Amino acid sequence: MKVALVGIGKIARDQHVPAIADSGDWELAATVSRSGSVTGVAAFHDYDAMLAERTDIPVVSLCLPPQPRFDYALKAIRAGRHVMLEKPPGQTLAEVHTLAAEAEKAGVTLFATWHSRMAHGVAPAKAWLADKTITKVTVTWKEDVRRWHPGQDWVFEPGGMGVFDPGINALSIVTEILPMPIRLTAAVLEFPANRHTPIAANLTFSDGVSAVFDWRQEGPQTWDITVETTAGRLDLHDGGARLVIDGAPAAAGPDREYAGLYARMAELVKAGASDVDATPLVHVADAFMLGSRRTVLPFEF
Amino acid sequence: MKVALVGIGKIARDQHVPAIADSGDWELAATVSRSGSVTGVAAFHDYDAMLAERTDIPVVSLCLPPQPRFDYALKAIRAGRHVMLEKPPGQTLAEVHTLAAEAEKAGVTLFATWHSRMAHGVAPAKAWLADKTITKVTVTWKEDVRRWHPGQDWVFEPGGMGVFDPGINALSIVTEILPMPIRLTAAVLEFPANRHTPIAANLTFSDGVSAVFDWRQEGPQTWDITVETTAGRLDLHDGGARLVIDGAPAAAGPDREYAGLYARMAELVKAGASDVDATPLVHVADAFMLGSRRTVLPFEF
Repeated sequence: MKVALVGIGKIARDQHVPAIADSGDWELAATVSRSGSVTGVAAFHDYDAMLAERTDIPVVSLCLPPQPRFDYALKAIRAGRHVMLEKPPGQTLAEVHTLAAEAEKAGVTLFATWHSRMAHGVAPAKAWLADKTITKVTVTWKEDVRRWHPGQDWVFEPGGMGVFDPGINALSIVTEILPMPIRLTAAVLEFPANRHTPIAANLTFSDGVSAVFDWRQEGPQTWDITVETTAGRLDLHDGGARLVIDGAPAAAGPDREYAGLYARMAELVKAGASDVDATPLVHVADAFMLGSRRTVLPFEF
Repeated sequence: MKVALVGIGKIARDQHVPAIADSGDWELAATVSRSGSVTGVAAFHDYDAMLAERTDIPVVSLCLPPQPRFDYALKAIRAGRHVMLEKPPGQTLAEVHTLAAEAEKAGVTLFATWHSRMAHGVAPAKAWLADKTITKVTVTWKEDVRRWHPGQDWVFEPGGMGVFDPGINALSIVTEILPMPIRLTAAVLEFPANRHTPIAANLTFSDGVSAVFDWRQEGPQTWDITVETTAGRLDLHDGGARLVIDGAPAAAGPDREYAGLYARMAELVKAGASDVDATPLVHVADAFMLGSRRTVLPFEF
């Protein structure tokens, strides 16, 4: 199946292009970008022109930053294309609701992807937890924004979500593996004095769940989820890639997250179905709405 | 039908008690409050005791502040009672989703009320706009927090929503009368230096919709919505109570908002139905998530 990739930046080069190239389902038929392109692939600067000229391409995958993504998605849906959205699926919840309604009206597939849910340990963690009684969940997501988003000021702009850009990956895993819904009960957000979005967050949820997100972590990076149950303990390390149950390795393997997303998109298109789960974004919006605010040192890249 | 009223504060005395007293459908059978009571009505201090002892009361109406409301609602639902929620229906969206799911599971009615939708001009405004093409919508909601929430520090605490406490009334009307869904595209929020929630907000939505909320308005108070269409202009004044179409009075009348809510609740219980529309709260959460932040002068009552 032919796919057009829109937004040829870091995430496209690092993940989308290799995942499409390695897949038997997909052919990268066009790119749309102001400056980027992929060798041997038709490159458009003008999105409208691509949609108008390349009616042979039924699927559009959007990996540009969240702020402009809605307009691109709506155009694709209204042009009868199936759409795959990078996370987060919108800069607001209303955007997600609108896109879901428009895709249904147009009879096309919309897939709001959460790449971390495709990490190696996630499916077996979910299966193991399905019949357990959970007593405590601890999420620690600490990374260095300078390493992962070098110079990307958009992450601190309104709509960029700040530390929730990585933190929503943790929330996408937690909401996938836990057998019960959770809800935020308190939050403390740390805003750099010169920025509109937080650089750190401390979240308390119902059901013994808590999370610490921090973007100021130099040295070793930490993406861990620990779940304590009445029947043992589960640890997910490395952003869900490595599962440990009661101290014993239970699943691990090379990164296949984006391969998993494109395989799922192929299934959805074939089945004429959509997959739009806004739950991780609901928790982020709730954190902004309910959180108390602390102003911290200005941040510069 | 017997109803228990929980949280005997300003809104209960001003609105709920008279609306119940004037209704042919309802009997105020109990109150629950730390300090308040209503003459001639059984007064409980202990909510659990009321639920356990008064199994003859099938409906609980919650008018306490949003922060504790979820726990009270969940207890009532799990005790098999129908529940009526003051606005906002939760301090988070996850709370609303959880309550809706629990009510469905328990087979009881949940009514997330929006009293401003019952204002006199709202239903005729919705009917008039149904076939119009909207070009511009301007919302101006400016009131004096000292007059309407004297000394109520909870409105500035996390979960109290600040100026969105009245602003969500405007959003509940806008989302009711407009024939199309809208989505936030930008917001500026003004936080007093000593408070966790905004005292003013400037919102830009899709489809030509904008809103200004301000809680520092002394003198005349303003709760206006203007809708310009290709076939004329509609004005709602006084929080929806007074409708003007193309400059001519079209609907007005005394305040019957809470009477309308209790009449609707009676219908819902009889029909075995629920009415939980979180859309106004979605826009508030989106504003917190997408908004840029400006720090303004400290506020004291």
